[in-house]
Amino acid sequence: MRSTSPMSMSMSCQIVLHLLFFIASLFSTHASSLCSKDGSVVRNISEIPSGNYGRDGLSHITIAGAVAHGMKEVEVWLHTFAPGARTPIHRHSCEEVFVVLKGAGTLLLGSSSSNSPGTPLEFKIHANSTFTVPINDPHQVWNTNEHEDLQVFVIISRPPIKSFIYKDWSMPHVAAKLKYPIFWDEDCWDSPKDEL
Amino acid sequence: MRSTSPMSMSMSCQIVLHLLFFIASLFSTHASSLCSKDGSVVRNISEIPSGNYGRDGLSHITIAGAVAHGMKEVEVWLHTFAPGARTPIHRHSCEEVFVVLKGAGTLLLGSSSSNSPGTPLEFKIHANSTFTVPINDPHQVWNTNEHEDLQVFVIISRPPIKSFIYKDWSMPHVAAKLKYPIFWDEDCWDSPKDEL
Repeated sequence: MRSTSPMSMSMSCQIVLHLLFFIASLFSTHASSLCSKDGSVVRNISEIPSGNYGRDGLSHITIAGAVAHGMKEVEVWLHTFAPGARTPIHRHSCEEVFVVLKGAGTLLLGSSSSNSPGTPLEFKIHANSTFTVPINDPHQVWNTNEHEDLQVFVIISRPPIKSFIYKDWSMPHVAAKLKYPIFWDEDCWDSPKDEL
Repeated sequence: MRSTSPMSMSMSCQIVLHLLFFIASLFSTHASSLCSKDGSVVRNISEIPSGNYGRDGLSHITIAGAVAHGMKEVEVWLHTFAPGARTPIHRHSCEEVFVVLKGAGTLLLGSSSSNSPGTPLEFKIHANSTFTVPINDPHQVWNTNEHEDLQVFVIISRPPIKSFIYKDWSMPHVAAKLKYPIFWDEDCWDSPKDEL
């Protein structure tokens, strides 16, 4: 068995500590650029951090957001879905407009007037199309194209968004689970806010 | 002098009438497609009518609008400015987000806290940049690029927009003139609405 001198232990610790500080500084830089309300008037979208925020196949960028940039009335996202990727089935009491920039896919739209969303209507979406999701209608956007990313601008009112998420289309509306803050707002969330 | 028989007069009248009906039907198709709230969930942006609405060098498309599509909380436009084209100097009491898709230009931003906008701050804008105009700040977007169109998505809250237009940067805020409905909403305006 190999013995380790106190000197080499100390050096190892220093290396580990430096490594930890380096990793911490990476995260701190990321958090600060993600959450900064630095007052820049014009921002380069390429420099806004993107992430999947635990959602497989999603790349999300908050172009203009309540939590990230202090917006009060509208919020704009850029979403890129890899082939097969999709949003959860969800609803929210705000307006939502999509503008499809690239790719193709399917919008699934359930009912808000029955007890549960029920079998959804299906609509084909494609590059250069636009659609609006009515307030409180359960819906899902799905990149059903096997070969190409689906990229959309998403505009919502009443930010920050309060989404109610369904496990499936037969789940009663009252059982849908509130996700607030939404995945990409969690890192910058300063203080507890009202739930509704 | 050549005489005209009643028969040929009648035929001429019929031709003129048919021509008038044809012209009227053209306008009516345009108005109906421009103003229709036909309930289509997914719309092709290429099929949404564009126009300059009396603004030299502008091409405007309402992607999702209050007057055109029944939106209540957000509105989305696609604006293309020819080289040298610009918005009027104006303000509005709603949030506004721009996403620059193509070209480059200048954002001019005046003061809302003095009696008049005053000498504006100038910001360079470019493809893949985004900027937000604070509520009630007088501003102007100008394609200062001589060789290329400037194309932007524009998102506003509280539609339909009520713009106050300035002749120049020294005009007092109280003298700015309300333009409501905005140029591109005039054709579809159904009924008189409150001025503010």
